[in-house]
Amino acid sequence: MTNPLSIRHRYGLTLLLALALPLLVQANEPLPSWNDGPAKNSIIEFVQAVTDQSGKDFVKPAERIAVFDNDGTLWSEQPAYFELLFAFDEVKRTAPQHPEWTTTQPFKAVLENDHKALAAAGMDGILKIFGATHTGMTTAAFDDDAKTWLSQAKHPKTGKPYTEMIFQPMLEMLDYLRSQQFKTYIVSGGDTAFMRAFAEKVYGIPPEQVIGTTFVTAFQLKDGQPSILRTAKLAHNDDGPGKPESIDAAIGRRPILAFGNSDGDLQMLQWTAAGTGKRFMGLVHHTDAKREWAYDRQSPVGKLDKALDEAKSRGWTIVDMAAEWRRVYPFEAATAEQVQ
Amino acid sequence: MTNPLSIRHRYGLTLLLALALPLLVQANEPLPSWNDGPAKNSIIEFVQAVTDQSGKDFVKPAERIAVFDNDGTLWSEQPAYFELLFAFDEVKRTAPQHPEWTTTQPFKAVLENDHKALAAAGMDGILKIFGATHTGMTTAAFDDDAKTWLSQAKHPKTGKPYTEMIFQPMLEMLDYLRSQQFKTYIVSGGDTAFMRAFAEKVYGIPPEQVIGTTFVTAFQLKDGQPSILRTAKLAHNDDGPGKPESIDAAIGRRPILAFGNSDGDLQMLQWTAAGTGKRFMGLVHHTDAKREWAYDRQSPVGKLDKALDEAKSRGWTIVDMAAEWRRVYPFEAATAEQVQ
Repeated sequence: MTNPLSIRHRYGLTLLLALALPLLVQANEPLPSWNDGPAKNSIIEFVQAVTDQSGKDFVKPAERIAVFDNDGTLWSEQPAYFELLFAFDEVKRTAPQHPEWTTTQPFKAVLENDHKALAAAGMDGILKIFGATHTGMTTAAFDDDAKTWLSQAKHPKTGKPYTEMIFQPMLEMLDYLRSQQFKTYIVSGGDTAFMRAFAEKVYGIPPEQVIGTTFVTAFQLKDGQPSILRTAKLAHNDDGPGKPESIDAAIGRRPILAFGNSDGDLQMLQWTAAGTGKRFMGLVHHTDAKREWAYDRQSPVGKLDKALDEAKSRGWTIVDMAAEWRRVYPFEAATAEQVQ
Repeated sequence: MTNPLSIRHRYGLTLLLALALPLLVQANEPLPSWNDGPAKNSIIEFVQAVTDQSGKDFVKPAERIAVFDNDGTLWSEQPAYFELLFAFDEVKRTAPQHPEWTTTQPFKAVLENDHKALAAAGMDGILKIFGATHTGMTTAAFDDDAKTWLSQAKHPKTGKPYTEMIFQPMLEMLDYLRSQQFKTYIVSGGDTAFMRAFAEKVYGIPPEQVIGTTFVTAFQLKDGQPSILRTAKLAHNDDGPGKPESIDAAIGRRPILAFGNSDGDLQMLQWTAAGTGKRFMGLVHHTDAKREWAYDRQSPVGKLDKALDEAKSRGWTIVDMAAEWRRVYPFEAATAEQVQ
């Protein structure tokens, strides 16, 4: 290796500038954690096209609606949806107020970490656990519960708070879109109130742009003090066809960009694709068993099968996580740029 | 009266400037269609307090949420809610596709302008009329229907399009709030999709900031073309307690300003008032039989009784339309400034 001092001696200021230049360029370029591959290029090409005022694909700022799934798209979802892990922890935390849970399924299974009994309880069991941990309290109390858990709980594999297991490349994409006057939304199967407990701080997405699964609520006035009670009745299941339904109900405009990672996002992508003018449809494909997880068609969590086929046949952007992301989580160091 | 020419001769340029100054000031002053009375003063005092960065009442821009009822607050609601008049006209327009309506109530009553039979059909009849005219079509088709009617229909009393029977002072208030980085929302008992058909153009309120009564929708895919069907099942009745419920569900933040005009707005006002920090609660009181309508405690439309008592006892702002508004509709000339 050449001694850098001798080089500096020989080329002086010119070399110093040449060394510094790539750093300066990088600071201004969008999506630094994305390799210079097909996914990054398709995002930038789309954004440039719809923001070019003299181009045929121009979209006025008010109509630059971008929707993102949350679980598996903006943060990880393994070994189980993080909200489900919250529900399990909440069962344990509140068990002293429910002595009957020590002998009643599916709560007994949660308290005893009995995975087999929990699996046997099935979706019905999961719904009971969600009901007991997500409803029956005021919206303010639930927000407190969620924020307390998020500030304390650690992921079983990484040991990191769940709110750090967010995808750095997607954060950069959200920032990039907002810098180009896009309005960024979450549209997710998760509970709206659970996601609002961290979305603004972590993603920069304010509560009014978080759309998810909801329960029927009831306004109540006690001793002159109003509050809003979360009842156990499901109001809207924001998965699959529920996503375009809630987009239409809450936003009232069709997005021009949609990003998901599983079959539960297919209808949202179809709805976005069916609009007139230029559109962007993207899927995060979990291909990175080393830095994150690798799963798709056979996974019980975040199953990606039909949507993968449709994305391939229609030319939607498929993000091969292992190949296209220089970094997965903000707490990791970036890998070297891989020019493809 | 002194001859103005002789004055000009005596004082020259100084006087010209003095005459022009009030006009310049007026152009920059907010709320020109409001008299310099208690309502205008309370609005300006509130806005100045929450936007003063060095003051104790400062609220950061992201939390400057302002919610407005629509019927009777932003536009008129007499002789009946305008959306009901739309529904009646839609029954007439679509009657050829429903020959059975000529012999079936409440449709027969609408087709024959039979007010007595219509009154006899009661709320059940009204719901049938809403079901027939507001559901069973795609969201895109309903939007077309509403926009077509709004562009053609005329109000029976003024002969003006309904979208011109909006309140000039409230338009100015919306503009003023937005100039101070407030986010303005509609929260109304009206159908969300009906209001979205004109809210952006008429009030400058985008579809994602229009919250109202909703029906359950269903995503459908026909020959590869997705659409969203409006079903006849009510999803949310956005009146009374439904208002704070929908505010919490759709916005996820408590407003710092709420404006209504009837008992259906009481819970929204209570919910707003119960937050910490400085708050503004306002009611439009319809006291102007000459320029608009005068009604309150006994009115079947826009009944204002309990909310009026609570506003008085809690010191909320009550806008006496006859006394405080220099102009009601944009198409009217303003009355002279009444200094009170």
